[in-house]
Amino acid sequence: MKFITARKNGQSFVGVLDASETLVLPLTKKENGFDFPQSMIECIELGDEFVKQAERVLQQASQSDFLELDAVELLAPIPRPRKNIFCVGKNYREHVIEMGSKDDIPEHVMVFTKAPTTVIASGAPILSHQEVTEQLDYEGELAVIIGKEGKAITKEEALDYIFGYTILNDVTARDLQSRHKQFFIGKSLDTTCPLGPCIVHKSVITDPSALQIETKVNGEVRQSSEKEKMIFPISEIISVLSQGMTLEPGDIIATGTPSGVGKGFNPPRFLRAGDEIEITIDQIGVLKNTVANL
Amino acid sequence: MKFITARKNGQSFVGVLDASETLVLPLTKKENGFDFPQSMIECIELGDEFVKQAERVLQQASQSDFLELDAVELLAPIPRPRKNIFCVGKNYREHVIEMGSKDDIPEHVMVFTKAPTTVIASGAPILSHQEVTEQLDYEGELAVIIGKEGKAITKEEALDYIFGYTILNDVTARDLQSRHKQFFIGKSLDTTCPLGPCIVHKSVITDPSALQIETKVNGEVRQSSEKEKMIFPISEIISVLSQGMTLEPGDIIATGTPSGVGKGFNPPRFLRAGDEIEITIDQIGVLKNTVANL
Repeated sequence: MKFITARKNGQSFVGVLDASETLVLPLTKKENGFDFPQSMIECIELGDEFVKQAERVLQQASQSDFLELDAVELLAPIPRPRKNIFCVGKNYREHVIEMGSKDDIPEHVMVFTKAPTTVIASGAPILSHQEVTEQLDYEGELAVIIGKEGKAITKEEALDYIFGYTILNDVTARDLQSRHKQFFIGKSLDTTCPLGPCIVHKSVITDPSALQIETKVNGEVRQSSEKEKMIFPISEIISVLSQGMTLEPGDIIATGTPSGVGKGFNPPRFLRAGDEIEITIDQIGVLKNTVANL
Repeated sequence: MKFITARKNGQSFVGVLDASETLVLPLTKKENGFDFPQSMIECIELGDEFVKQAERVLQQASQSDFLELDAVELLAPIPRPRKNIFCVGKNYREHVIEMGSKDDIPEHVMVFTKAPTTVIASGAPILSHQEVTEQLDYEGELAVIIGKEGKAITKEEALDYIFGYTILNDVTARDLQSRHKQFFIGKSLDTTCPLGPCIVHKSVITDPSALQIETKVNGEVRQSSEKEKMIFPISEIISVLSQGMTLEPGDIIATGTPSGVGKGFNPPRFLRAGDEIEITIDQIGVLKNTVANL
């Protein structure tokens, strides 16, 4: 199942996509016979019961229960996370080398964060921030959504703590990232975290590490994870993060970007107003956003 | 005025301390003639009107309206921030030198974050996390609470965006901090952000940069900011953070720690179970916590 958050008539709701992915079934209607919460995080907090009830409602739905996807406003699946987004840095070998050298390949998981104010939906404009950066860059990534609270999670049980997966564009101001040393400032400009379009429930994905990421800028393929593997697999990231820190339902973990970012080119190819970035991950969908001077 | 968050009979509320600081006036009682929200962040969001109404209620209160501070459970003034805590690294010259060398004195504000799950009240135990760190350390800091939304704030107007001030202990696992390069992991173990005991409204503090921080461990003075000044003053921190990133009411910014942390001693003096850390900032109060193996 693919879950989205959307808005109609000023009211946001959680919905499930139909097989054609052109229709959405809102889950929050009272007639559904189950008290679905209005926000994705609250739905995720309900655990397996939420997924079970959503499946039931989807099976029982008639054609007229669905809305045209074009007739609703798509929001990020989690429009306002309850904490910063966890991001793994330097998790693909070739990307580490394009950003520096082999010597930078990390021995331990490296984590920084993005502020919740960065999150936007697929289709929403990415601000160019021309007044503060000249080096805006894209990073296509697979994001993991945590499904239940946990601490000191072992690698073996890590995948049990996942609710699902989505796509994330870790848009980065490279000049700010290097100027301020710690990555946070260069990673947290408003609108620099396109997220979505949907969350795919984990049951759909047999092997998350086999998911391929492709990033296009204006139709040109820039990133493709085909020949690259994560240095730290998802199970290890979850295990490391949770040693001493409690993970919670709705937590978002961006798992790193493969090679092909703008800074990796010579000369670098940073984003400009009008550029369209399209990140595709099979079995999840396409996250598409355009850079704008607003 | 000094605001606290506390709990009685399972119900949390925002209150104002009396002059003796032994009594608290709960603001959320209906008889107050104003609909005070239940959480500090929501109160702060009301802006000047909240402070005005709190002042009125405080003036009109009779002795019987107050509760003994000892009879309520003190919580962190913001028990659950809506995003990670912003922390400025390397903001006191002597501290930078004790952690490395003069060459590490930053030219630009360095910011990392702590997860919201780190926050605890004054008096609550700091977990020793002996299973994941051997180098738990304290960092006494002045924290700024943002009062209203803003972006691209100039240094000149920065102080207008402050609601008040509190004390923060940026407890750090030094081994994790260096092992994982980016500071986040070493800064985000559960219970490693004691916060409080209260938020002092900005009107009480004429010059925040003149506030002195003193940290004692088991009664011994370890940190004293007397001879040190922030490298980046509060107005500059707020201005830099808000260039391209929206600050919001309730945001917490820890402004850095002076010299005297455990790692700065030779040999280092890391925290052990039973150690009591007491951070005092004049005009705010004392933040006191004890390390525990739990």
